[in-house]
Amino acid sequence: MAKMKALVCRECGKEYPTEAIHVCELCFGPLEVKYNYDEIKTKVSRQSIEAGPKSLWRYQDFLPIEGKPTVGLYAGFTPLVRAHNLGAYLGIDELYIKNDCVNHPTLSFKDRVVAVALTRARELGFETAACASTGNLANSVAAHAAQAGMQCYVFIPGDLEAAKVLGNLIYRPKVIEIEGTYDDVNRLCSEIAGERQWAFVNVNVRPYYAEGSKTLAYETAEQLGWRAPDQVVVPMASGSLLTKIWKGLNEFKTVGLLDAVNTKVNGAQAEGCSPIATAYKQGRDFFKPVKPSTIAKSLAIGNPADGYYALKTVAESGGAMDAVSDDEVVEGIKLLAQTEGIFAETAGGVTIGVLQKLAKQGLIKRDDVTVAYITGNGLKTQEAVVDSVGRPYRIPPSLAKFEQTFGQQGEA
Amino acid sequence: MAKMKALVCRECGKEYPTEAIHVCELCFGPLEVKYNYDEIKTKVSRQSIEAGPKSLWRYQDFLPIEGKPTVGLYAGFTPLVRAHNLGAYLGIDELYIKNDCVNHPTLSFKDRVVAVALTRARELGFETAACASTGNLANSVAAHAAQAGMQCYVFIPGDLEAAKVLGNLIYRPKVIEIEGTYDDVNRLCSEIAGERQWAFVNVNVRPYYAEGSKTLAYETAEQLGWRAPDQVVVPMASGSLLTKIWKGLNEFKTVGLLDAVNTKVNGAQAEGCSPIATAYKQGRDFFKPVKPSTIAKSLAIGNPADGYYALKTVAESGGAMDAVSDDEVVEGIKLLAQTEGIFAETAGGVTIGVLQKLAKQGLIKRDDVTVAYITGNGLKTQEAVVDSVGRPYRIPPSLAKFEQTFGQQGEA
Repeated sequence: MAKMKALVCRECGKEYPTEAIHVCELCFGPLEVKYNYDEIKTKVSRQSIEAGPKSLWRYQDFLPIEGKPTVGLYAGFTPLVRAHNLGAYLGIDELYIKNDCVNHPTLSFKDRVVAVALTRARELGFETAACASTGNLANSVAAHAAQAGMQCYVFIPGDLEAAKVLGNLIYRPKVIEIEGTYDDVNRLCSEIAGERQWAFVNVNVRPYYAEGSKTLAYETAEQLGWRAPDQVVVPMASGSLLTKIWKGLNEFKTVGLLDAVNTKVNGAQAEGCSPIATAYKQGRDFFKPVKPSTIAKSLAIGNPADGYYALKTVAESGGAMDAVSDDEVVEGIKLLAQTEGIFAETAGGVTIGVLQKLAKQGLIKRDDVTVAYITGNGLKTQEAVVDSVGRPYRIPPSLAKFEQTFGQQGEA
Repeated sequence: MAKMKALVCRECGKEYPTEAIHVCELCFGPLEVKYNYDEIKTKVSRQSIEAGPKSLWRYQDFLPIEGKPTVGLYAGFTPLVRAHNLGAYLGIDELYIKNDCVNHPTLSFKDRVVAVALTRARELGFETAACASTGNLANSVAAHAAQAGMQCYVFIPGDLEAAKVLGNLIYRPKVIEIEGTYDDVNRLCSEIAGERQWAFVNVNVRPYYAEGSKTLAYETAEQLGWRAPDQVVVPMASGSLLTKIWKGLNEFKTVGLLDAVNTKVNGAQAEGCSPIATAYKQGRDFFKPVKPSTIAKSLAIGNPADGYYALKTVAESGGAMDAVSDDEVVEGIKLLAQTEGIFAETAGGVTIGVLQKLAKQGLIKRDDVTVAYITGNGLKTQEAVVDSVGRPYRIPPSLAKFEQTFGQQGEA
């Protein structure tokens, strides 16, 4: 019996075959993968997972592919870092950083969703990979498509950081910069997806793509010793990641891998693009789209496709949402680097900044087992911090000059 | 009985206690850690290692610390990527990339040697970490020192890539740029090390530091299913890494984890700084120091401390050495990215370039199980490739404009 039962509309419940479709014909709601959990339950155990590969594919039984994984075999299973110093600083006794800064191969959590999306896309017969991206997704699609021998087109806004643009070009896909925002890019890609037989990972293949994010939840639970955390803090661009972390934890409970899930799911945005967090604070179920203006470019989605569902998830789990200024984003990056030796990109600064706010407000308590998701590496957004970290001292190669600058005890 | 017997001079054999010393008093030769392999043999098995943590510390029994690891708990155990495409292109049937581009936390193999060096340094009572560095080492020392709560001073040459300078400053150590080459930096650090009670990881703590590189060999053997490869290709800066890969493989044989080691160890340099490869080609045992001039700045050590031992290792193992031009370095980076979706720094381009040369010359044969060590991430040396990868296409957010550029079939 098949692992995947159908695609199902999240709004009206209509079912569809597991093909490359993403929108309900009846009500235009988004489609999601529906699984046969009774079947999955017979296949998995803690031991079977622990015996699996050191990648996200150890959770293959929960992922929307029919055969074996073929793309992104080494993605996932990143370190869950116990953050003693940052926890002490914030007043949280058991704090962890889930560190996708070192994900294989392109240093962001997107390597997870792309591994799944392109494996499925190849099962469905696609030969060309494509995406609309705020940066990390394009890097990941370009890298994976190169390794998989697929043609590749990545579409990005016109103002991305230099490292992210290079991080596409190096793999030699077609890189198309759109003179506009991510939302303009996304709209154009939906139009192109209607015209080409291409696997747009976050358009026509989106239901499969999105499932890859669940692996962050699975890994968290396994690495915590098969328990769900009390609190998670998740950055929100489209809002999809946050919803899938909740889904993943609950799937583990459904099949008996976890006894209980009482996790509060908290969402983090940058003030300069916080449609979802704003709706939360105003007690509304629906967000109002915005025009983004923030250094957190990877989260700069003014019209987030899963914003509504992120609000539902946070409400259901009893969590909260908050947003931080660009200055607080930079301070968040520096705080994480200087306490835990982890250099994250702006999305990471957003997450740490909001983690700090929630702890300060007492929404995250000292004895809450807490996990913060750090989704991308700091080398990708250097522009955001390069002017905030000072400069090196510069001296000739002379011991006398060194001692002149640093005194007898090494103090400057 | 202790795992570490003594420090021993590699030249005259004189023994010393396992303290923070690195030079023989008698003959000024370098000191190396000497282990009690009979003792180690009683502790390790393939199963005990496989049950260990998913980090380099699964090989703790072979590493020069007395107690438990305290620094860099998540370093190592990076993917060994089967390179089907690159192998097919080069005519090598079973080619692997050992991918330290994603090492935790600073994306280079230096995270290994630093984890070991600083754990040992703390055992010896040091509170301040320091290093002379061509870039990656400083990033790693700064990050680990921040997490370990140690004071930190990193010394770098004056011409490093922007990402490497930022990759120090973000952790807020003292960063001292020396107006000179790495060799000037190294000399100055030796002087300072004589005056301060600091753990210079690659000066006074070097014997312990260097041992961390063995873990690349251990992981290779374990990830290949407990077998030694036929060929390895290793980039050479000081030459230490190459010698430690040979040492690591042979240690596994000594304690019975491997049945045989017939690995040919090959060394790779950039032509603009190839003192060791030049000596090899001229059939000499001793290299002549050079003034480096290459884009492969991480390998720009004109007076390599382990150059002599690297020549010995290659001779003993029946391997070879070669060097590549700066253009070939860039082509190597692009080839790896475009065949395997891995974006490496210039040292990686050196390794791939030399791998290609050795294969072309028939020194690496089609059926040689071959591993190439890719030691650092491409985002750290963007300057080297940014002008060689073209530019994105740039269009307004219009379907008509897209089709105008890319035609009906998506061809530009």
